[in-house]
Amino acid sequence: MKVGNQTIVFKNKPKIIGSYSVAGEKEGYGNFKEYFDYVLKDDKFGEKTFEKAERKIIEHTIFKAIDSANLTVADIDLLVSGDLLNQIISSSFTARHFDSTFIGLYGACSTMAESLAIGACMVDAKHFINVACATGSHFSTVERQYRYPLELGNQRPPVSQWTVTGAGCSILSLKGKSNIRISSATFGKVTDYGIKDANNMGAAMAPAAMRTIITHFEDTKSKPEDFDLILTGDLGKLGSEIFLDLMEHHGYKLGNNYNDCGQMIYNNNQKTFQGGSGAGCSAVVLNSYIFKKLQEGTFKKVLFAATGALLSPISSQQGESIPGICHAIVLERSDD
Amino acid sequence: MKVGNQTIVFKNKPKIIGSYSVAGEKEGYGNFKEYFDYVLKDDKFGEKTFEKAERKIIEHTIFKAIDSANLTVADIDLLVSGDLLNQIISSSFTARHFDSTFIGLYGACSTMAESLAIGACMVDAKHFINVACATGSHFSTVERQYRYPLELGNQRPPVSQWTVTGAGCSILSLKGKSNIRISSATFGKVTDYGIKDANNMGAAMAPAAMRTIITHFEDTKSKPEDFDLILTGDLGKLGSEIFLDLMEHHGYKLGNNYNDCGQMIYNNNQKTFQGGSGAGCSAVVLNSYIFKKLQEGTFKKVLFAATGALLSPISSQQGESIPGICHAIVLERSDD
Repeated sequence: MKVGNQTIVFKNKPKIIGSYSVAGEKEGYGNFKEYFDYVLKDDKFGEKTFEKAERKIIEHTIFKAIDSANLTVADIDLLVSGDLLNQIISSSFTARHFDSTFIGLYGACSTMAESLAIGACMVDAKHFINVACATGSHFSTVERQYRYPLELGNQRPPVSQWTVTGAGCSILSLKGKSNIRISSATFGKVTDYGIKDANNMGAAMAPAAMRTIITHFEDTKSKPEDFDLILTGDLGKLGSEIFLDLMEHHGYKLGNNYNDCGQMIYNNNQKTFQGGSGAGCSAVVLNSYIFKKLQEGTFKKVLFAATGALLSPISSQQGESIPGICHAIVLERSDD
Repeated sequence: MKVGNQTIVFKNKPKIIGSYSVAGEKEGYGNFKEYFDYVLKDDKFGEKTFEKAERKIIEHTIFKAIDSANLTVADIDLLVSGDLLNQIISSSFTARHFDSTFIGLYGACSTMAESLAIGACMVDAKHFINVACATGSHFSTVERQYRYPLELGNQRPPVSQWTVTGAGCSILSLKGKSNIRISSATFGKVTDYGIKDANNMGAAMAPAAMRTIITHFEDTKSKPEDFDLILTGDLGKLGSEIFLDLMEHHGYKLGNNYNDCGQMIYNNNQKTFQGGSGAGCSAVVLNSYIFKKLQEGTFKKVLFAATGALLSPISSQQGESIPGICHAIVLERSDD
């Protein structure tokens, strides 16, 4: 396993000058209910289809994140976004409503980190002034696209995770007031340990998380203890255990400063089995709880490592395994 | 229509130190047969499915592009790639074979320009040394995913284009020998004029091409005459006419230095109606004919503006129109 030379240390440390999170009804009963900016009363958000609802959630989140930065839509120079739907239609159709350039990504559930890493590169290099980074997912669009129609009422296996309905958006800039900055980004490598079970995505993504996080430590000469929180994207409970085992196998014993967005988002009574997943999972946790704890000063340095499972129904049908990826950024609190 | 402030002018002007193109059998009978590096004898490329063939074509193209730059796989620090398949599986699965970081994109048929623009930003900022930018498409995967199963034998409407089977890859670096450089990039805005006919993608993408190209002229204070070639991605014949009309309407009369990859790739006897399309279309034209003409000195400055139609079958079924996007880069010949 070759690691190293994947980390960008930002000279100008782009600030997060605005953020917003919208969560679904079920997520609103979970562990972060007081932290979400808005909780849906109706998962269709007044739309006719779940796909249109997903798009509206992402749109609404971006508009509100721009507001929170005391900017107007016209101030946003670049939108970096992706989602889980085929041809990232939620993001592309959302982008019609913003008169800004658009970089469309596909990074599965790693999208929040991928978009922040690319956005931070653009802001750091002063190519664009204000950049919106966003993603989201919807339980009902993802289930029917990746697995089975909801109407089938399929039984969920115990290793499965529950796709989060929700979206998050962060506004990056060198201007404006904020005490949260992105100090570095580590882009990940596609890693495939041969997992073929499309219900066990935590296991498929854990090796990628291990690789990116070890790379980050080696590239920046940092240690797990340097972080108040090392947060993986959505490995879920089982995936997190596998990740911790893999880390230990490579000589890194993580302590209480490790957690996982998928593991954290729901409470134990919500029958989600291994926890949350979906591009929206790490997006809503980051843009609510994590940023608030950074603002308050509870956290000073967070390694946010969002993970993605790069499968499609076609690849599964053709007998392929599930490659994983993990992109990471470091968030630091500094008095502005 | 707000234009401007979307162009990045590169300080270090990343060089294109290697490139490769693989084209399908049909494309091998078209106008650029002598320019393609490799023409397939069998569109399945020895694989069992068209999807596996598409992936193998992209993989092979990247390996050969690395060879052409006199580098090894281990020298590549970053792969920036996307494709038309759901969840960009061709790119993600390809990335398993390269021990490099991976940025997955979705830009539909604009991917070649999107990947080069992002790759150039990364090389220009010295975040990565050698970056591979790649994309491709396959007629048989795209038809069955976006439109109908091939076995149905549906009649193609006269406004349709033919999805190119092929892939292209360019290697960017500040090191190495090359007389082709990327001097600037203009990221595009999502533009939707309300076209709903999924067979008439040229019309859907033409407004985006017009907007990005005018933005490029305004941002860089350049004129159409400054370029030896202004090349749109794959508007096809009808789309190119619409594009020229839109440009004229905005005060830009383009002359003989304008052409379109979709319009150029096939000859008139190949019954492709409006010409070529697909992410592979502009990728193979750029990585064969265009680079060779730049190397020879026939072209000194080329504006390459790849266009993408951001539809999905789901968005069409739900009555949506087709948003378009166009990303552009400027290629300049300079004696190394």
